[in-house]
Amino acid sequence: MHEFKEIFADREAPAGRVVRAIAAIGSVSATQLVKSTGLARSTVSTVLTDLKDRGIVLEGETRSAGFGRPTQLLSLNPTQGFCAGILFGLGEVRVAICDLAHTVVSDFWFEMPQDYTPSDAAVRVRLQLEEECDKLGIATSELLGVGLAVSAPVSYEGQVLNGSILPTWCGIDIAQVFSREIDCPIFAENESHCGALAEMTWGAAVGEPNFVLFKFDLGVGGAVVINGIVQRGAFGNAAEFGHISLNPHGPLCRCGNRGCLETYAGGFNLIRLAEQATGERISIETFIERVKAGNASYRRLVEDAAEMAGWGMGITSTILSPPLFVIAGKLASLGEIFITALEKHFARHSVQPPPHARHIRNPKIMVGKFLANDDTVLGAVALVLHQHGRVTA
Amino acid sequence: MHEFKEIFADREAPAGRVVRAIAAIGSVSATQLVKSTGLARSTVSTVLTDLKDRGIVLEGETRSAGFGRPTQLLSLNPTQGFCAGILFGLGEVRVAICDLAHTVVSDFWFEMPQDYTPSDAAVRVRLQLEEECDKLGIATSELLGVGLAVSAPVSYEGQVLNGSILPTWCGIDIAQVFSREIDCPIFAENESHCGALAEMTWGAAVGEPNFVLFKFDLGVGGAVVINGIVQRGAFGNAAEFGHISLNPHGPLCRCGNRGCLETYAGGFNLIRLAEQATGERISIETFIERVKAGNASYRRLVEDAAEMAGWGMGITSTILSPPLFVIAGKLASLGEIFITALEKHFARHSVQPPPHARHIRNPKIMVGKFLANDDTVLGAVALVLHQHGRVTA
Repeated sequence: MHEFKEIFADREAPAGRVVRAIAAIGSVSATQLVKSTGLARSTVSTVLTDLKDRGIVLEGETRSAGFGRPTQLLSLNPTQGFCAGILFGLGEVRVAICDLAHTVVSDFWFEMPQDYTPSDAAVRVRLQLEEECDKLGIATSELLGVGLAVSAPVSYEGQVLNGSILPTWCGIDIAQVFSREIDCPIFAENESHCGALAEMTWGAAVGEPNFVLFKFDLGVGGAVVINGIVQRGAFGNAAEFGHISLNPHGPLCRCGNRGCLETYAGGFNLIRLAEQATGERISIETFIERVKAGNASYRRLVEDAAEMAGWGMGITSTILSPPLFVIAGKLASLGEIFITALEKHFARHSVQPPPHARHIRNPKIMVGKFLANDDTVLGAVALVLHQHGRVTA
Repeated sequence: MHEFKEIFADREAPAGRVVRAIAAIGSVSATQLVKSTGLARSTVSTVLTDLKDRGIVLEGETRSAGFGRPTQLLSLNPTQGFCAGILFGLGEVRVAICDLAHTVVSDFWFEMPQDYTPSDAAVRVRLQLEEECDKLGIATSELLGVGLAVSAPVSYEGQVLNGSILPTWCGIDIAQVFSREIDCPIFAENESHCGALAEMTWGAAVGEPNFVLFKFDLGVGGAVVINGIVQRGAFGNAAEFGHISLNPHGPLCRCGNRGCLETYAGGFNLIRLAEQATGERISIETFIERVKAGNASYRRLVEDAAEMAGWGMGITSTILSPPLFVIAGKLASLGEIFITALEKHFARHSVQPPPHARHIRNPKIMVGKFLANDDTVLGAVALVLHQHGRVTA
C-alpha cells in the first residue's frame, strides 16, 4: 500500500498520471486513459503492463459498443488505498471512507455542539478517523487524502470565504487547522462543488464532461463543470448561483445586495414565509413533507421558488449553453412539483432553439442522484479521487 | 510554402502541434511550447532544431524576467504562410490578410447591396482574395485558411443560428456555401467570439487565459474564455449575453423573451430612444459623437444602458468569477462616460470580496484594444491562427 501511495502522489510520472486518471473515473478503457492523461498510447500500454503485474491495476468487465471488439475496462485494486470525505453540518459531522473501486467501506457521523469551531472539529475528525482506519487495518497517515466539504466558497489556498451557515468558520485557514491534526494530504472545497464531483463520479453526470449543477437547499449554490473540471474562477468563488441578482429592489441578501436568487428560492426563505403564514416554527424536512402531502400554501411557495430558480438557470444557460443541468438539494427531492414550474420559467428566460436548426435542443434538466447529504460527503471523497481542491502538500 | 502548409495541417504530428502553437501565440519560449502542446521537452527540442534548420522557425528577441537566464523567443518565419479573415457587415465586406508573424499585409473592403446573400458574398470574396493573393505571389489555395466572422451564433457544423443583423443568412450552411468558392480550410464563428480571439492575440487580453468579453455595439454579444479556449457551449451558442434576461415584464426582444440585456443596452435601442425624443433619424456613429460632445439627453441614455450592462456583467461574474472583463464595441469607445456607471452597477450586482480575504479583488474591467470593426476582421484571422471554429476539412 505504501508503494501505491508513492505512485499516486507522483503528479509528473506517467504511472502517477495513469493511476490518478483511473482513480477519478473508477473503471476506464486504455483508449480513455490515452485521452485523459495526454500520454502516448505506447507509454500508457507500458505503464499498464507494469501496474497489472504488480497487482495495482485489475482488468475488469468488458464492454461492447454494439459493433467491433469489446473494450477491456481497467480499475484500481480496491484494497490498494482508501480516501476519506468529511461533511461539516450545522450540528453534526459526517465521515465516509471509500476504497479505490469507489465503494464506501465506512460511513458514520457524530454530533457537535452548535457553533463548533474548526479546531474542535479537526480534533474530533482525527479521533474518529483513527478509530475507523484501525478497523480497516491502516493508519490515518496511510489514507490517500482527506477531503473536506464546507458550506461556503473556499479559496485555492484553503481559506473559507464566508460563514453563512457556519459563522465561526468565516476566514479560517483550513489547511493550517486540519494539517495540525491530520497527517495526510488535505483537500477542501465548497460543498456544492463537492456535490458536482459526486454526480460526475457516481451520479447523474457520469460520462458527461460538461454540465451545470444547481443545488436548492437551505441556501442556493452550484457548480460549473467544463471538460470534466469543476471551475473555481479567479479565487475559488465561481458558481455562487445563490447570488445571481434578479431584482435590484428585491429583498436584502446576506451578501449585501438585493434580490439575489437565494432570497427567493433558498429553503431558509421558504421556511420563513411558511412560518409567517402559520405562526408555527418548522424545519426544512417538515416543510418538504407537507409539500409532498399536498399542502396548497406550501406548494405555492415551492412554485414561486421554482419560478425564480428557472429564471436563474435560464440566465446561466444563455451564458454557458451547457448540454445538461443537474438539480440537487432538498427542493429537488420534490421532483415534478418543483421541476415542472422550473422548466416552464427556464424556457421563458433562456434563448430557445431556432426553428430551422433541428439538432439544437434545450439542455437536459435532470434531478441529481444525491439529494440528501450523500452528495456532499461522497463529493468530499471525490475531491481526493479527482485530486481537486488540494490545500496541503 | 507547400511544405509548411503540410506541417501546419497535420494535427497529430509533433511538428504540426508545435507550429500551430507558435502560430496562435505569435512569439513564444520553448518552455511555453512544452506547456501548450503537452509534448515532452525533448520532443519539442528535436522538432524545433529541425524547424529552425529548415527556416520555418526563427529565433527572435530574448526576454529576461529580471533574474536568471534571458529567454529565447521563437516565432514562425512570416513568409511561410498567410491567413485571411473576412467580416460581413450590413452593406460591406472587409477582408484582412496576415502573415505568420501576425502582421497585417493586406486590409481592404468592398460594398455589397443591402440584404446580399451568402452565395453572392462567397463569389465576391473569392474574386477579391484572388486579386490580393496574386499581389502576394500566392494562390488562394495556398492560404493556411480563411476565417469568416458572422454577426450571429454559428454551430459547430457551420450553420448560422439566427439572422438578427443579416436576415438572409439565417440557417445558412457556411461550410457548404463558401467551400464551393474557396479552396482552402474555412473557419467560421460568431463575431464576438472572433473579437475575443483578437484581444487574446493582439489586444487587452494578451497573456490572460481566463477572461470574459462583453461587446456593446448595435447588439450586445460576448465570449467566455477559459484556459485560452473560447467556450462555445453545447451548440456553438454560448455567451449570448445580449439575451441575459433581466426583467420578465421588460421590452419584447427579437429572441421571443422580454427584458433581455440587449433591449436596454444595445445600440439599436439607444438610437431608437434618441429618435423618439428628437424626431431625427441618426446613426450609431452620430449618436456616439454627440455623447462625446456632451449632449445631456444622450448621455443619460448611455448611463441607463451602462446600469443594465453592469447588472448583466455582475451576474456573469457571480457565475464565472473571471479575473478580467474586456469591454468592446462602440459604447466602449465612450470610455469613462460608459465605464464609470457600469462599474458602479457591476458592484451592486456581483458578490463583493469579503473583508477578511485581502487577496480577493473585483475583476479588472478593461476597455478592449479593438473597438471598431478591427476586432472582428482580425479575430477572423485569429480563427485560422488558433485553429478555432473550423467548418471544412
